[in-house]
Amino acid sequence: MRIGIVGLGLIGGTIAKSLNKKHIIEAYDIDFNAVDYAKKNNIIDKGYDDLKAFLANNQIIFLCLYPKNIAPFFKENIDVIKHQTLFIEISGIKTSLIKEIESLNINHFDIVYTHPIAGRETIGIQGSDKAIFKKANFVIIDNHRNCKTNVDIVHKLAVDMGFRNINNISAEYHDKIIAYTSQLTHVISLALVNSFDQHEVLCNYTGDSYRDLTRIANINIDLWTDLFINNKSMLLEKITDFEKQIKLFKNALENNDIIELETIMKKAKRKHNIFLKEKKNES
Amino acid sequence: MRIGIVGLGLIGGTIAKSLNKKHIIEAYDIDFNAVDYAKKNNIIDKGYDDLKAFLANNQIIFLCLYPKNIAPFFKENIDVIKHQTLFIEISGIKTSLIKEIESLNINHFDIVYTHPIAGRETIGIQGSDKAIFKKANFVIIDNHRNCKTNVDIVHKLAVDMGFRNINNISAEYHDKIIAYTSQLTHVISLALVNSFDQHEVLCNYTGDSYRDLTRIANINIDLWTDLFINNKSMLLEKITDFEKQIKLFKNALENNDIIELETIMKKAKRKHNIFLKEKKNES
Repeated sequence: MRIGIVGLGLIGGTIAKSLNKKHIIEAYDIDFNAVDYAKKNNIIDKGYDDLKAFLANNQIIFLCLYPKNIAPFFKENIDVIKHQTLFIEISGIKTSLIKEIESLNINHFDIVYTHPIAGRETIGIQGSDKAIFKKANFVIIDNHRNCKTNVDIVHKLAVDMGFRNINNISAEYHDKIIAYTSQLTHVISLALVNSFDQHEVLCNYTGDSYRDLTRIANINIDLWTDLFINNKSMLLEKITDFEKQIKLFKNALENNDIIELETIMKKAKRKHNIFLKEKKNES
Repeated sequence: MRIGIVGLGLIGGTIAKSLNKKHIIEAYDIDFNAVDYAKKNNIIDKGYDDLKAFLANNQIIFLCLYPKNIAPFFKENIDVIKHQTLFIEISGIKTSLIKEIESLNINHFDIVYTHPIAGRETIGIQGSDKAIFKKANFVIIDNHRNCKTNVDIVHKLAVDMGFRNINNISAEYHDKIIAYTSQLTHVISLALVNSFDQHEVLCNYTGDSYRDLTRIANINIDLWTDLFINNKSMLLEKITDFEKQIKLFKNALENNDIIELETIMKKAKRKHNIFLKEKKNES
Protein backbone atom coordinates (compact mmCIF):
# COMPACT_ATOMS: atom_id res chain seq x y z
CA MET A 1 0.00 0.00 0.00
CA ARG A 2 1.02 3.60 -0.35
CA ILE A 3 0.98 5.21 3.09
CA GLY A 4 1.12 8.96 3.63
CA ILE A 5 2.30 10.66 6.81
CA VAL A 6 1.57 14.26 7.78
CA GLY A 7 3.96 15.32 10.55
CA LEU A 8 7.37 13.68 10.76
CA GLY A 9 8.00 14.05 14.47
CA LEU A 10 8.84 11.27 16.90
CA ILE A 11 5.68 9.29 16.20
CA GLY A 12 5.37 10.13 12.50
CA GLY A 13 9.01 9.12 12.06
CA THR A 14 8.49 5.92 14.01
CA ILE A 15 5.44 5.04 11.89
CA ALA A 16 7.54 5.57 8.76
CA LYS A 17 10.37 3.39 10.09
CA SER A 18 7.91 0.68 11.18
CA LEU A 19 6.17 0.46 7.80
CA ASN A 20 8.81 1.36 5.22
CA LYS A 21 9.93 -2.15 4.45
CA LYS A 22 6.36 -3.31 3.77
CA HIS A 23 4.76 -0.26 2.17
CA ILE A 24 5.57 2.81 0.10
CA ILE A 25 5.89 5.77 2.44
CA GLU A 26 5.24 9.36 1.40
CA ALA A 27 5.38 12.26 3.83
CA TYR A 28 4.72 15.93 4.36
CA ASP A 29 5.86 18.15 7.21
CA ILE A 30 5.56 21.89 7.65
CA ASP A 31 9.29 21.75 8.47
CA PHE A 32 10.95 20.59 5.29
CA ASN A 33 14.13 19.74 7.21
CA ALA A 34 12.29 16.79 8.76
CA VAL A 35 11.17 15.60 5.31
CA ASP A 36 14.67 16.07 3.97
CA TYR A 37 16.17 14.12 6.88
CA ALA A 38 13.67 11.29 6.34
CA LYS A 39 14.41 11.13 2.62
CA LYS A 40 18.19 11.24 3.04
CA ASN A 41 18.04 8.47 5.64
CA ASN A 42 15.76 6.29 3.50
CA ILE A 43 13.00 6.46 6.11
CA ILE A 44 10.47 7.53 3.46
CA ASP A 45 10.20 6.90 -0.25
CA LYS A 46 8.97 10.34 -1.21
CA GLY A 47 8.84 13.70 0.53
CA TYR A 48 6.62 16.69 -0.28
CA ASP A 49 6.99 20.39 0.39
CA ASP A 50 3.56 20.98 -1.10
CA LEU A 51 0.68 19.75 1.04
CA LYS A 52 -1.83 19.89 -1.81
CA ALA A 53 0.30 17.65 -3.97
CA PHE A 54 0.73 15.28 -1.02
CA LEU A 55 -3.03 15.15 -0.41
CA ALA A 56 -3.70 14.59 -4.10
CA ASN A 57 -1.39 11.58 -4.18
CA ASN A 58 -2.26 9.89 -0.89
CA GLN A 59 -5.42 8.16 0.21
CA ILE A 60 -4.29 6.52 3.45
CA ILE A 61 -2.74 9.14 5.68
CA PHE A 62 -1.39 9.02 9.23
CA LEU A 63 -2.09 12.43 10.73
CA CYS A 64 0.66 12.96 13.29
CA LEU A 65 -0.09 16.43 14.60
CA TYR A 66 -0.53 17.86 18.08
CA PRO A 67 -4.24 17.79 19.06
CA LYS A 68 -4.61 21.58 18.76
CA ASN A 69 -3.45 21.51 15.13
CA ILE A 70 -5.81 18.76 13.95
CA ALA A 71 -9.11 20.64 13.54
CA PRO A 72 -7.29 23.59 11.86
CA PHE A 73 -5.66 21.09 9.49
CA PHE A 74 -9.03 19.73 8.39
CA LYS A 75 -10.62 23.19 8.18
CA GLU A 76 -7.84 24.52 5.97
CA ASN A 77 -7.67 21.52 3.69
CA ILE A 78 -11.24 20.22 3.60
CA ASP A 79 -11.67 21.23 -0.04
CA VAL A 80 -8.46 19.64 -1.30
CA ILE A 81 -8.77 16.35 0.57
CA LYS A 82 -9.80 13.64 -1.87
CA HIS A 83 -13.03 11.70 -1.53
CA GLN A 84 -12.69 8.51 0.49
CA THR A 85 -9.32 9.44 1.93
CA LEU A 86 -8.62 7.54 5.15
CA PHE A 87 -6.98 9.62 7.90
CA ILE A 88 -5.50 7.76 10.84
CA GLU A 89 -5.28 10.15 13.76
CA ILE A 90 -2.80 9.18 16.49
CA SER A 91 -2.84 11.68 19.36
CA GLY A 92 -3.15 10.93 23.06
CA ILE A 93 -6.59 12.43 23.73
CA LYS A 94 -9.88 11.67 22.04
CA THR A 95 -13.20 12.92 23.47
CA SER A 96 -12.69 16.68 23.09
CA LEU A 97 -10.83 16.23 19.80
CA ILE A 98 -13.52 14.08 18.19
CA LYS A 99 -16.21 16.51 19.35
CA GLU A 100 -14.31 19.38 17.75
CA ILE A 101 -13.79 17.50 14.48
CA GLU A 102 -17.42 16.31 14.33
CA SER A 103 -18.57 19.92 14.38
CA LEU A 104 -16.85 20.33 11.00
CA ASN A 105 -19.43 17.98 9.41
CA ILE A 106 -16.92 16.09 7.32
CA ASN A 107 -18.63 13.71 4.91
CA HIS A 108 -16.36 12.93 2.03
CA PHE A 109 -13.49 11.28 3.88
CA ASP A 110 -13.02 9.08 6.94
CA ILE A 111 -11.01 9.62 10.13
CA VAL A 112 -10.10 6.64 12.29
CA TYR A 113 -8.95 7.81 15.71
CA THR A 114 -6.20 5.70 17.22
CA HIS A 115 -3.58 5.84 19.95
CA PRO A 116 -0.28 4.05 19.65
CA ILE A 117 0.48 3.91 23.39
CA ALA A 118 4.19 4.28 23.00
CA GLY A 119 6.58 7.16 23.15
CA ARG A 120 9.98 8.28 24.21
CA GLU A 121 11.32 11.28 26.11
CA THR A 122 12.70 12.89 22.95
CA ILE A 123 11.19 15.00 20.19
CA GLY A 124 11.55 14.96 16.44
CA ILE A 125 12.20 12.32 13.81
CA GLN A 126 15.82 11.98 14.97
CA GLY A 127 14.54 10.22 18.09
CA SER A 128 12.21 7.90 16.18
CA ASP A 129 12.86 4.20 16.48
CA LYS A 130 10.70 1.29 15.40
CA ALA A 131 11.57 -0.49 18.66
CA ILE A 132 9.18 1.97 20.36
CA PHE A 133 6.17 0.19 18.81
CA LYS A 134 7.47 -3.36 19.22
CA LYS A 135 4.95 -5.36 21.27
CA ALA A 136 3.33 -2.12 22.47
CA ASN A 137 -0.38 -1.37 22.88
CA PHE A 138 -2.52 0.18 20.17
CA VAL A 139 -6.03 1.50 20.60
CA ILE A 140 -8.65 2.09 17.91
CA ILE A 141 -11.53 4.32 18.98
CA ASP A 142 -15.07 3.00 18.29
CA ASN A 143 -16.79 5.44 15.96
CA HIS A 144 -20.04 4.65 14.13
CA ARG A 145 -19.01 7.02 11.33
CA ASN A 146 -16.06 4.85 10.35
CA CYS A 147 -16.19 2.60 7.34
CA LYS A 148 -15.57 -0.98 8.50
CA THR A 149 -13.01 -1.57 5.72
CA ASN A 150 -10.99 1.41 6.97
CA VAL A 151 -10.98 0.12 10.53
CA ASP A 152 -9.70 -3.21 9.18
CA ILE A 153 -6.93 -1.41 7.27
CA VAL A 154 -5.89 0.42 10.44
CA HIS A 155 -5.85 -2.84 12.37
CA LYS A 156 -3.65 -4.43 9.73
CA LEU A 157 -1.27 -1.45 9.73
CA ALA A 158 -1.03 -1.60 13.54
CA VAL A 159 0.03 -5.25 13.22
CA ASP A 160 2.52 -4.29 10.50
CA MET A 161 3.99 -1.64 12.80
CA GLY A 162 4.72 -4.27 15.44
CA PHE A 163 1.98 -3.57 17.99
CA ARG A 164 0.95 -6.62 19.99
CA ASN A 165 -2.33 -5.61 21.62
CA ILE A 166 -4.85 -3.88 19.47
CA ASN A 167 -8.06 -2.94 21.28
CA ASN A 168 -11.19 -1.15 20.16
CA ILE A 169 -12.65 1.08 22.88
CA SER A 170 -14.75 4.21 23.25
CA ALA A 171 -13.23 7.69 23.29
CA GLU A 172 -14.45 8.26 26.86
CA TYR A 173 -12.95 5.01 28.13
CA HIS A 174 -9.70 5.80 26.35
CA ASP A 175 -9.44 9.24 27.93
CA LYS A 176 -10.29 7.88 31.35
CA ILE A 177 -7.70 5.13 31.34
CA ILE A 178 -5.01 7.24 29.63
CA ALA A 179 -5.55 9.94 32.26
CA TYR A 180 -4.31 7.29 34.69
CA THR A 181 -1.68 5.27 32.82
CA SER A 182 -0.08 8.11 30.92
CA GLN A 183 -1.12 11.57 32.06
CA LEU A 184 -1.06 11.05 35.84
CA THR A 185 2.35 9.36 35.54
CA HIS A 186 3.71 12.46 33.81
CA VAL A 187 2.20 14.78 36.43
CA ILE A 188 3.80 12.66 39.16
CA SER A 189 7.19 12.65 37.49
CA LEU A 190 7.15 16.45 37.12
CA ALA A 191 6.09 16.93 40.74
CA LEU A 192 8.75 14.51 41.97
CA VAL A 193 11.53 16.37 40.16
CA ASN A 194 10.22 19.77 41.26
CA SER A 195 9.99 18.80 44.92
CA PHE A 196 13.79 18.90 45.32
CA ASP A 197 16.30 21.70 44.93
CA GLN A 198 19.78 20.25 44.66
CA HIS A 199 19.75 18.25 41.48
CA GLU A 200 23.48 18.74 40.93
CA VAL A 201 24.32 16.33 43.77
CA LEU A 202 21.51 13.86 43.20
CA CYS A 203 23.36 11.53 40.86
CA ASN A 204 25.53 10.36 43.76
CA TYR A 205 22.56 9.20 45.79
CA THR A 206 20.09 7.74 43.32
CA GLY A 207 19.31 4.19 42.35
CA ASP A 208 17.06 2.69 39.69
CA SER A 209 13.84 3.86 41.32
CA TYR A 210 14.61 7.58 41.03
CA ARG A 211 15.88 7.16 37.48
CA ASP A 212 12.73 5.27 36.43
CA LEU A 213 10.28 7.65 38.09
CA THR A 214 11.83 10.77 36.60
CA ARG A 215 12.68 9.64 33.06
CA ILE A 216 9.46 11.10 31.64
CA ALA A 217 9.99 14.48 33.35
CA ASN A 218 11.96 15.38 30.23
CA ILE A 219 8.62 16.26 28.69
CA ASN A 220 7.59 17.76 25.34
CA ILE A 221 6.01 20.92 26.73
CA ASP A 222 3.91 21.98 23.73
CA LEU A 223 2.44 18.54 23.21
CA TRP A 224 1.72 17.84 26.86
CA THR A 225 0.13 21.22 27.60
CA ASP A 226 -2.28 20.33 24.84
CA LEU A 227 -2.88 16.80 26.16
CA PHE A 228 -3.34 17.91 29.79
CA ILE A 229 -5.72 20.77 28.97
CA ASN A 230 -7.82 18.64 26.61
CA ASN A 231 -8.33 15.88 29.14
CA LYS A 232 -8.70 18.20 32.09
CA SER A 233 -11.69 16.73 33.92
CA MET A 234 -10.54 13.10 33.65
CA LEU A 235 -7.02 14.03 34.71
CA LEU A 236 -8.18 16.15 37.67
CA GLU A 237 -10.19 13.16 38.87
CA LYS A 238 -7.14 10.88 38.66
CA ILE A 239 -4.90 13.41 40.41
CA THR A 240 -7.47 13.62 43.22
CA ASP A 241 -7.61 9.80 43.52
CA PHE A 242 -3.82 9.74 43.69
CA GLU A 243 -3.68 12.53 46.29
CA LYS A 244 -6.04 10.50 48.48
CA GLN A 245 -3.70 7.51 48.35
CA ILE A 246 -0.68 9.66 49.22
CA LYS A 247 -2.69 11.09 52.13
CA LEU A 248 -3.60 7.59 53.36
CA PHE A 249 0.08 6.67 53.46
CA LYS A 250 1.07 9.94 55.09
CA ASN A 251 -1.54 9.56 57.82
CA ALA A 252 -0.50 5.98 58.51
CA LEU A 253 3.13 7.04 58.81
CA GLU A 254 2.31 10.04 61.00
CA ASN A 255 0.42 7.72 63.36
CA ASN A 256 3.09 5.00 63.29
CA ASP A 257 0.25 2.79 62.09
CA ILE A 258 2.24 -0.22 60.95
CA ILE A 259 -0.87 -2.30 60.29
CA GLU A 260 -2.17 0.37 57.89
CA LEU A 261 1.22 0.77 56.19
CA GLU A 262 1.33 -2.98 55.65
CA THR A 263 -2.24 -2.95 54.33
CA ILE A 264 -1.33 -0.24 51.81
CA MET A 265 1.72 -2.19 50.64
CA LYS A 266 -0.16 -5.50 50.46
CA LYS A 267 -2.91 -3.87 48.42
CA ALA A 268 -0.41 -2.34 45.99
CA LYS A 269 1.46 -5.63 45.61
CA ARG A 270 -1.77 -7.52 44.95
CA LYS A 271 -2.98 -4.99 42.39
CA HIS A 272 0.40 -4.70 40.71
CA ASN A 273 0.72 -8.47 40.48
CA ILE A 274 -2.63 -8.64 38.66
CA PHE A 275 -1.21 -6.17 36.15
CA LEU A 276 2.09 -8.08 35.83
CA LYS A 277 0.29 -11.42 35.45
CA GLU A 278 -1.98 -10.13 32.68
CA LYS A 279 1.03 -8.58 31.00
CA LYS A 280 2.89 -11.89 31.16
CA ASN A 281 -0.09 -13.81 29.77
CA GLU A 282 0.14 -11.67 26.69
CA SER A 283 3.80 -12.21 25.97
CA MET B 1 40.74 -11.22 52.31
CA ARG B 2 38.28 -13.45 54.09
CA ILE B 3 34.86 -11.73 54.01
CA GLY B 4 31.95 -12.83 56.17
CA ILE B 5 28.31 -12.14 55.43
CA VAL B 6 25.46 -12.32 57.93
CA GLY B 7 22.15 -12.48 56.09
CA LEU B 8 22.06 -14.00 52.62
CA GLY B 9 19.09 -12.12 51.20
CA LEU B 10 19.03 -10.07 48.02
CA ILE B 11 21.81 -7.71 49.11
CA GLY B 12 23.86 -10.26 51.09
CA GLY B 13 23.70 -12.59 48.10
CA THR B 14 24.68 -9.81 45.72
CA ILE B 15 27.64 -8.86 47.93
CA ALA B 16 28.77 -12.50 47.88
CA LYS B 17 28.45 -12.72 44.08
CA SER B 18 30.28 -9.39 43.65
CA LEU B 19 33.24 -10.38 45.82
CA ASN B 20 33.58 -14.14 45.47
CA LYS B 21 36.11 -14.11 42.68
CA LYS B 22 38.44 -11.77 44.57
CA HIS B 23 37.98 -12.87 48.18
CA ILE B 24 37.10 -15.88 50.31
CA ILE B 25 33.43 -15.62 51.25
CA GLU B 26 31.93 -17.16 54.37
CA ALA B 27 28.32 -16.72 55.34
CA TYR B 28 25.70 -17.26 58.00
CA ASP B 29 21.94 -16.94 57.72
CA ILE B 30 19.23 -17.82 60.22
CA ASP B 31 17.63 -19.69 57.32
CA PHE B 32 20.06 -22.47 56.49
CA ASN B 33 18.34 -23.02 53.11
CA ALA B 34 19.82 -19.70 51.93
CA VAL B 35 23.30 -20.78 53.07
CA ASP B 36 22.82 -24.16 51.44
CA TYR B 37 21.67 -22.55 48.18
CA ALA B 38 24.71 -20.22 48.22
CA LYS B 39 27.11 -23.09 48.85
CA LYS B 40 25.60 -25.36 46.18
CA ASN B 41 25.73 -22.55 43.62
CA ASN B 42 29.34 -21.66 44.49
CA ILE B 43 28.30 -18.19 45.62
CA ILE B 44 30.15 -18.62 48.92
CA ASP B 45 33.17 -20.64 49.92
CA LYS B 46 31.92 -21.72 53.33
CA GLY B 47 28.54 -21.71 55.02
CA TYR B 48 27.76 -21.84 58.74
CA ASP B 49 24.71 -22.98 60.68
CA ASP B 50 26.40 -21.90 63.92
CA LEU B 51 26.65 -18.13 64.36
CA LYS B 52 29.26 -18.41 67.12
CA ALA B 53 31.57 -20.43 64.90
CA PHE B 54 31.03 -17.93 62.10
CA LEU B 55 31.85 -14.98 64.38
CA ALA B 56 34.93 -16.76 65.70
CA ASN B 57 36.28 -17.26 62.18
CA ASN B 58 35.45 -13.90 60.58
CA GLN B 59 36.84 -10.46 61.27
CA ILE B 60 35.37 -8.48 58.34
CA ILE B 61 31.64 -8.98 58.26
CA PHE B 62 28.90 -7.51 56.08
CA LEU B 63 25.82 -7.30 58.28
CA CYS B 64 22.87 -7.64 55.88
CA LEU B 65 19.91 -7.52 58.23
CA TYR B 66 16.74 -5.46 58.31
CA PRO B 67 17.25 -2.34 60.47
CA LYS B 68 15.05 -3.64 63.30
CA ASN B 69 17.20 -6.77 63.66
CA ILE B 70 20.55 -5.01 63.87
CA ALA B 71 20.60 -3.77 67.49
CA PRO B 72 19.20 -7.13 68.72
CA PHE B 73 21.98 -8.89 66.77
CA PHE B 74 24.68 -6.87 68.53
CA LYS B 75 22.98 -7.20 71.94
CA GLU B 76 22.74 -10.97 71.65
CA ASN B 77 26.24 -11.51 70.33
CA ILE B 78 28.27 -8.74 71.95
CA ASP B 79 30.19 -11.21 74.11
CA VAL B 80 31.12 -13.60 71.31
CA ILE B 81 32.15 -10.95 68.76
CA LYS B 82 35.93 -10.90 68.52
CA HIS B 83 37.99 -7.84 69.34
CA GLN B 84 38.63 -5.59 66.35
CA THR B 85 36.00 -7.21 64.18
CA LEU B 86 34.86 -4.87 61.41
CA PHE B 87 31.12 -4.90 60.74
CA ILE B 88 29.90 -3.28 57.53
CA GLU B 89 26.26 -2.37 57.98
CA ILE B 90 24.29 -1.87 54.74
CA SER B 91 20.69 -0.85 55.44
CA GLY B 92 18.76 2.06 53.93
CA ILE B 93 18.38 4.24 57.05
CA LYS B 94 21.04 5.58 59.35
CA THR B 95 20.25 8.27 61.96
CA SER B 96 17.86 6.31 64.17
CA LEU B 97 19.80 3.09 63.70
CA ILE B 98 23.16 4.59 64.69
CA LYS B 99 21.57 6.25 67.72
CA GLU B 100 20.16 2.89 68.81
CA ILE B 101 23.48 1.10 68.32
CA GLU B 102 25.50 3.84 70.06
CA SER B 103 23.40 3.31 73.17
CA LEU B 104 24.89 -0.19 73.40
CA ASN B 105 28.34 1.32 74.14
CA ILE B 106 30.25 -1.04 71.93
CA ASN B 107 34.00 -0.62 72.35
CA HIS B 108 35.77 -3.74 71.24
CA PHE B 109 34.74 -3.82 67.58
CA ASP B 110 33.97 -1.33 64.81
CA ILE B 111 30.84 -0.76 62.74
CA VAL B 112 31.08 1.13 59.46
CA TYR B 113 27.63 2.20 58.31
CA THR B 114 27.16 2.12 54.55
CA HIS B 115 24.41 2.13 51.96
CA PRO B 116 24.79 0.39 48.63
CA ILE B 117 22.10 2.41 46.78
CA ALA B 118 20.98 -0.44 44.62
CA GLY B 119 18.23 -2.98 44.82
CA ARG B 120 15.73 -4.95 42.90
CA GLU B 121 12.03 -5.67 43.30
CA THR B 122 12.67 -9.23 44.45
CA ILE B 123 13.59 -10.80 47.76
CA GLY B 124 16.06 -13.49 48.71
CA ILE B 125 19.39 -14.72 47.44
CA GLN B 126 17.73 -16.23 44.34
CA GLY B 127 17.18 -12.70 43.04
CA SER B 128 20.73 -11.57 43.75
CA ASP B 129 22.80 -10.46 40.79
CA LYS B 130 26.14 -8.70 40.74
CA ALA B 131 24.84 -6.49 37.91
CA ILE B 132 22.79 -4.67 40.59
CA PHE B 133 25.96 -3.05 41.99
CA LYS B 134 27.64 -2.37 38.66
CA LYS B 135 28.35 1.38 38.38
CA ALA B 136 25.87 2.07 41.20
CA ASN B 137 26.23 4.54 44.09
CA PHE B 138 27.70 3.61 47.46
CA VAL B 139 27.62 5.73 50.58
CA ILE B 140 29.85 5.51 53.65
CA ILE B 141 28.54 7.31 56.71
CA ASP B 142 30.96 9.67 58.48
CA ASN B 143 31.46 8.41 62.01
CA HIS B 144 34.20 9.65 64.34
CA ARG B 145 34.19 6.28 66.11
CA ASN B 146 35.41 4.46 63.00
CA CYS B 147 39.01 3.38 62.64
CA LYS B 148 40.41 5.02 59.49
CA THR B 149 41.91 1.72 58.29
CA ASN B 150 38.47 0.12 58.44
CA VAL B 151 36.90 2.92 56.40
CA ASP B 152 39.64 2.37 53.81
CA ILE B 153 38.88 -1.37 53.73
CA VAL B 154 35.19 -0.63 53.16
CA HIS B 155 36.05 1.79 50.37
CA LYS B 156 38.21 -0.82 48.69
CA LEU B 157 35.50 -3.48 49.01
CA ALA B 158 32.94 -1.09 47.47
CA VAL B 159 35.27 -0.67 44.49
CA ASP B 160 35.71 -4.45 44.31
CA MET B 161 31.92 -4.89 44.26
CA GLY B 162 31.65 -2.69 41.19
CA PHE B 163 30.31 0.56 42.68
CA ARG B 164 31.29 3.65 40.75
CA ASN B 165 30.51 6.54 43.09
CA ILE B 166 31.61 6.18 46.65
CA ASN B 167 30.73 9.15 48.83
CA ASN B 168 31.27 9.85 52.52
CA ILE B 169 28.38 11.78 54.06
CA SER B 170 26.70 12.29 57.42
CA ALA B 171 23.88 10.06 58.62
CA GLU B 172 21.47 13.00 58.64
CA TYR B 173 22.31 14.02 55.08
CA HIS B 174 21.97 10.41 53.97
CA ASP B 175 18.54 10.04 55.51
CA LYS B 176 17.36 13.34 54.07
CA ILE B 177 18.41 12.61 50.51
CA ILE B 178 17.33 8.95 50.63
CA ALA B 179 13.91 10.06 51.89
CA TYR B 180 13.64 11.79 48.53
CA THR B 181 15.44 9.55 46.03
CA SER B 182 14.36 6.21 47.41
CA GLN B 183 11.61 6.40 50.01
CA LEU B 184 9.38 9.02 48.39
CA THR B 185 9.64 7.19 45.07
CA HIS B 186 8.34 4.01 46.73
CA VAL B 187 5.48 5.89 48.43
CA ILE B 188 4.53 7.39 45.04
CA SER B 189 4.64 4.05 43.28
CA LEU B 190 2.38 2.46 45.92
CA ALA B 191 -0.09 5.36 45.76
CA LEU B 192 -0.14 5.28 41.96
CA VAL B 193 -0.99 1.58 41.89
CA ASN B 194 -3.60 1.94 44.64
CA SER B 195 -5.38 4.83 42.95
CA PHE B 196 -6.90 2.55 40.31
CA ASP B 197 -9.27 -0.39 40.56
CA GLN B 198 -9.20 -2.38 37.34
CA HIS B 199 -5.69 -3.71 37.10
CA GLU B 200 -6.80 -6.73 35.07
CA VAL B 201 -7.39 -4.56 31.98
CA LEU B 202 -4.47 -2.18 32.45
CA CYS B 203 -1.90 -4.11 30.46
CA ASN B 204 -3.77 -3.21 27.25
CA TYR B 205 -3.48 0.50 27.86
CA THR B 206 -0.07 1.07 29.39
CA GLY B 207 3.19 2.26 27.90
CA ASP B 208 6.69 2.55 29.32
CA SER B 209 5.80 5.32 31.75
CA TYR B 210 3.29 3.28 33.75
CA ARG B 211 5.61 0.27 33.77
CA ASP B 212 8.54 2.36 35.02
CA LEU B 213 6.60 4.21 37.71
CA THR B 214 5.06 1.07 39.18
CA ARG B 215 7.96 -1.40 39.03
CA ILE B 216 8.95 -0.72 42.64
CA ALA B 217 5.37 -1.17 43.92
CA ASN B 218 6.29 -4.85 44.20
CA ILE B 219 7.79 -3.96 47.54
CA ASN B 220 9.38 -6.01 50.33
CA ILE B 221 6.80 -5.20 53.01
CA ASP B 222 8.81 -6.16 56.13
CA LEU B 223 11.89 -4.27 55.05
CA TRP B 224 10.10 -1.15 53.88
CA THR B 225 7.84 -0.85 56.93
CA ASP B 226 11.06 -0.75 58.90
CA LEU B 227 12.69 1.80 56.56
CA PHE B 228 9.64 4.08 56.41
CA ILE B 229 9.03 4.09 60.17
CA ASN B 230 12.68 4.71 60.99
CA ASN B 231 12.96 7.69 58.69
CA LYS B 232 9.54 9.03 59.50
CA SER B 233 10.19 12.76 59.97
CA MET B 234 12.43 13.12 56.89
CA LEU B 235 9.99 11.16 54.76
CA LEU B 236 6.95 13.09 55.97
CA GLU B 237 8.73 16.30 54.98
CA LYS B 238 9.45 14.97 51.49
CA ILE B 239 5.88 13.72 51.04
CA THR B 240 4.63 17.18 52.00
CA ASP B 241 6.99 18.86 49.50
CA PHE B 242 5.75 16.48 46.83
CA GLU B 243 2.09 17.07 47.70
CA LYS B 244 2.67 20.81 47.26
CA GLN B 245 4.02 20.25 43.75
CA ILE B 246 1.06 18.04 42.82
CA LYS B 247 -1.24 20.75 44.15
CA LEU B 248 0.52 23.43 42.07
CA PHE B 249 -0.06 21.40 38.94
CA LYS B 250 -3.66 20.63 39.87
CA ASN B 251 -4.46 24.30 40.50
CA ALA B 252 -2.89 25.35 37.21
CA LEU B 253 -4.92 22.74 35.35
CA GLU B 254 -8.15 23.63 37.15
CA ASN B 255 -7.64 27.28 36.15
CA ASN B 256 -6.60 26.42 32.56
CA ASP B 257 -3.43 28.33 33.45
CA ILE B 258 -1.28 27.34 30.50
CA ILE B 259 1.53 29.72 31.48
CA GLU B 260 1.79 28.06 34.89
CA LEU B 261 1.63 24.54 33.40
CA GLU B 262 4.46 25.47 31.06
CA THR B 263 6.44 26.99 33.94
CA ILE B 264 6.08 23.75 35.91
CA MET B 265 7.22 21.66 32.96
CA LYS B 266 10.13 23.99 32.12
CA LYS B 267 11.28 23.89 35.73
CA ALA B 268 11.15 20.08 35.84
CA LYS B 269 13.02 19.77 32.54
CA ARG B 270 15.72 22.18 33.71
CA LYS B 271 16.16 20.41 37.04
CA HIS B 272 16.06 16.95 35.48
CA ASN B 273 18.63 17.94 32.89
CA ILE B 274 21.01 19.04 35.65
CA PHE B 275 20.65 15.55 37.13
CA LEU B 276 21.12 13.84 33.75
CA LYS B 277 24.15 15.99 32.91
CA GLU B 278 25.86 15.24 36.22
CA LYS B 279 25.05 11.57 35.74
CA LYS B 280 26.56 11.63 32.27
CA ASN B 281 29.70 13.40 33.48
CA GLU B 282 30.30 10.46 35.74
CA SER B 283 30.05 7.76 33.14
